[in-house]
Amino acid sequence: MQNFTFYNPVKIIFGRDTVSKIGREAAKAGKKALLVYGGGSIKKNGVYATVAGSLSKNGLTFIEHSGVRPNPVLTHAHEGVKKAKENGCDLIIAAGGGSVIDEAKAIAAGARYNGDVWDFFTGAAAIKDAVALFTVLTIPATGSEMNSGCVVTNEATKQKYNAGSPRLFPRVSILDPETTMSLPREQAANGAVDALAHLIEGYFTAEDTDVMMTDELVHAIARSVIASTDRIMADPKDYNARASMMWSATLALNGLQALGYGGGNFINHAIEHSLSAIYDIAHGAGLAIVLPAWFKYHLKMDGPGRLVKFGEAAFGAHNAEETVLAFESWFRKIGAPVRLSEARIPSADIPKIAENAMGLIAKWEIAGYDRKTVEEILQKAA
Amino acid sequence: MQNFTFYNPVKIIFGRDTVSKIGREAAKAGKKALLVYGGGSIKKNGVYATVAGSLSKNGLTFIEHSGVRPNPVLTHAHEGVKKAKENGCDLIIAAGGGSVIDEAKAIAAGARYNGDVWDFFTGAAAIKDAVALFTVLTIPATGSEMNSGCVVTNEATKQKYNAGSPRLFPRVSILDPETTMSLPREQAANGAVDALAHLIEGYFTAEDTDVMMTDELVHAIARSVIASTDRIMADPKDYNARASMMWSATLALNGLQALGYGGGNFINHAIEHSLSAIYDIAHGAGLAIVLPAWFKYHLKMDGPGRLVKFGEAAFGAHNAEETVLAFESWFRKIGAPVRLSEARIPSADIPKIAENAMGLIAKWEIAGYDRKTVEEILQKAA
Repeated sequence: MQNFTFYNPVKIIFGRDTVSKIGREAAKAGKKALLVYGGGSIKKNGVYATVAGSLSKNGLTFIEHSGVRPNPVLTHAHEGVKKAKENGCDLIIAAGGGSVIDEAKAIAAGARYNGDVWDFFTGAAAIKDAVALFTVLTIPATGSEMNSGCVVTNEATKQKYNAGSPRLFPRVSILDPETTMSLPREQAANGAVDALAHLIEGYFTAEDTDVMMTDELVHAIARSVIASTDRIMADPKDYNARASMMWSATLALNGLQALGYGGGNFINHAIEHSLSAIYDIAHGAGLAIVLPAWFKYHLKMDGPGRLVKFGEAAFGAHNAEETVLAFESWFRKIGAPVRLSEARIPSADIPKIAENAMGLIAKWEIAGYDRKTVEEILQKAA
Repeated sequence: MQNFTFYNPVKIIFGRDTVSKIGREAAKAGKKALLVYGGGSIKKNGVYATVAGSLSKNGLTFIEHSGVRPNPVLTHAHEGVKKAKENGCDLIIAAGGGSVIDEAKAIAAGARYNGDVWDFFTGAAAIKDAVALFTVLTIPATGSEMNSGCVVTNEATKQKYNAGSPRLFPRVSILDPETTMSLPREQAANGAVDALAHLIEGYFTAEDTDVMMTDELVHAIARSVIASTDRIMADPKDYNARASMMWSATLALNGLQALGYGGGNFINHAIEHSLSAIYDIAHGAGLAIVLPAWFKYHLKMDGPGRLVKFGEAAFGAHNAEETVLAFESWFRKIGAPVRLSEARIPSADIPKIAENAMGLIAKWEIAGYDRKTVEEILQKAA
């Protein structure tokens, strides 16, 4: 078990009818908010009206920044930064899923920086300050509501990169499972795959594998994600399943899931980010394609028996091969794509995808993966 | 799954050679510390020297407040409050186990209060301010290093009561498993029982039991506590086992372990506190006596099948009776007492113990337990 530091000051307000608490919480930080959201689903499900009402009831005004895309893009974040600066916003409220929260984080940092916010993603500058951030989560998946990182795509360079700083922890995140009840199956599936991927990355690339507590925690969250999603697929209106999934996805990337593992990397995310940077594909769907392929590649280096251990805990599998098949068949069962072709990505593009992935692999200093290796992995998803 | 709020801003610094970081962290909060510790084991294991050196290296001075007893007592906390006030201490450092940390919390609150700190324990006053608290944990058990509560015994009234406030969260807690390597088996066993008890209380008294994520988390921590302790008993110098146990005990009472359960109570603690308020018995040992007795009583009301579920996950048990036996035999295996007589407490005292327990049962508003019920439970431990 390796040394670690853990610090996570996000206040979580979880449950039914909690969205209306946003105004009172936000009022502790400022008076004028930038309200960041996506394509308008929050107008359909009532979240927008509740947030707007709560803000005004608590004496806050707000400027709108809507139209955040899944896989949020830099040019739109730039617009948000401009709005926040021009209007002197002293807090930011993100209402939506991980993409909305991630772009809001970029805006929060950019609003207190004189250069280009992209500097934080390339590593050219470090985040030293940020506007106070509050979130109202409506899609369980990324864990962004309880961590300090964000991912944005630079459309010009086709780079889907991440940035982070303790300054980017949301002050308060509100998680009302009722807001997820109308999520289509496809989004529920993508969210489940994303949450599992967050658990898997650290677990399978751990430098130290004698870490009983974290192993058990990872198994626990994975089991909850799987069981919750199975129930959601059977009955999308199952509140307790939606609630358990929502909390599980948050716990899957709030820091606890990798404590003590020492080294470790996000190789599947590095490869997937290339897919969603180049193609119009949801992050979770991309991960469902990459993960089984990577497991097949990983099979030959599973010295510590992690595949057996995880597979047994999560799927009742008996050996490494069974675990890989169990992943693949569970992804299929919930309707996630598991081959490039199922997402209409031509195998002929594999070299291009691998080339793009090398950018993040270099940035994240992931050892052992050159372009040929990544191509080899992607061929297993062909 | 019921609504909840979760907030835990404690920064955890975990691992080998981390105790020396205390000075740099403490220097962020002040200049003059009250150093709270117990009977001097920190002088034997080097923690005292490391803390003292780190404080002085970082420009801090400190006043000593030693002699904290297991089951810390009010009169000693009063002395600490007096010292902190007289010397104008602007931070408190607790170096030791849960008792030391709990008394330090009482002192932290008392130092910013004009009345008697006991007011916070009876509920006569609420904690509105406290001196900044830092901890160096040396005994995994109570979870106090990552929560905002504390328990102190009023020797005059024989009341072992709790107090709490978000103000009592330690700013930073340092957990170096090396400091626990020399803990005797008995203390390791008591700590394991205490951690399990923290998980059990919420799990078995939940108002809502359809909470998949928290159930899985509770199972995970319990499995880790059990597996770690088994390894410690086989080899007390097993670093990874000590480390896993240390982190497991922290997670067992940092708030996560009961999220979504709604109601719930600490009935076993209410009964045990009477044992350790009246007799010279370690809290963990007292719990090892009370828990199996309470389970036997609980058997008849285990409608939701929690005993089966927990027992299967933690011990591989097949039914409720097996679970109760598994608890009892595991406690025996690690050397914890499971009968009043094994702790030299006469059965004739049962009415007196039950009478005392009614104080906390009333304070905590635990329904369904009158004096007769508590006597009935304690008879099962006779």
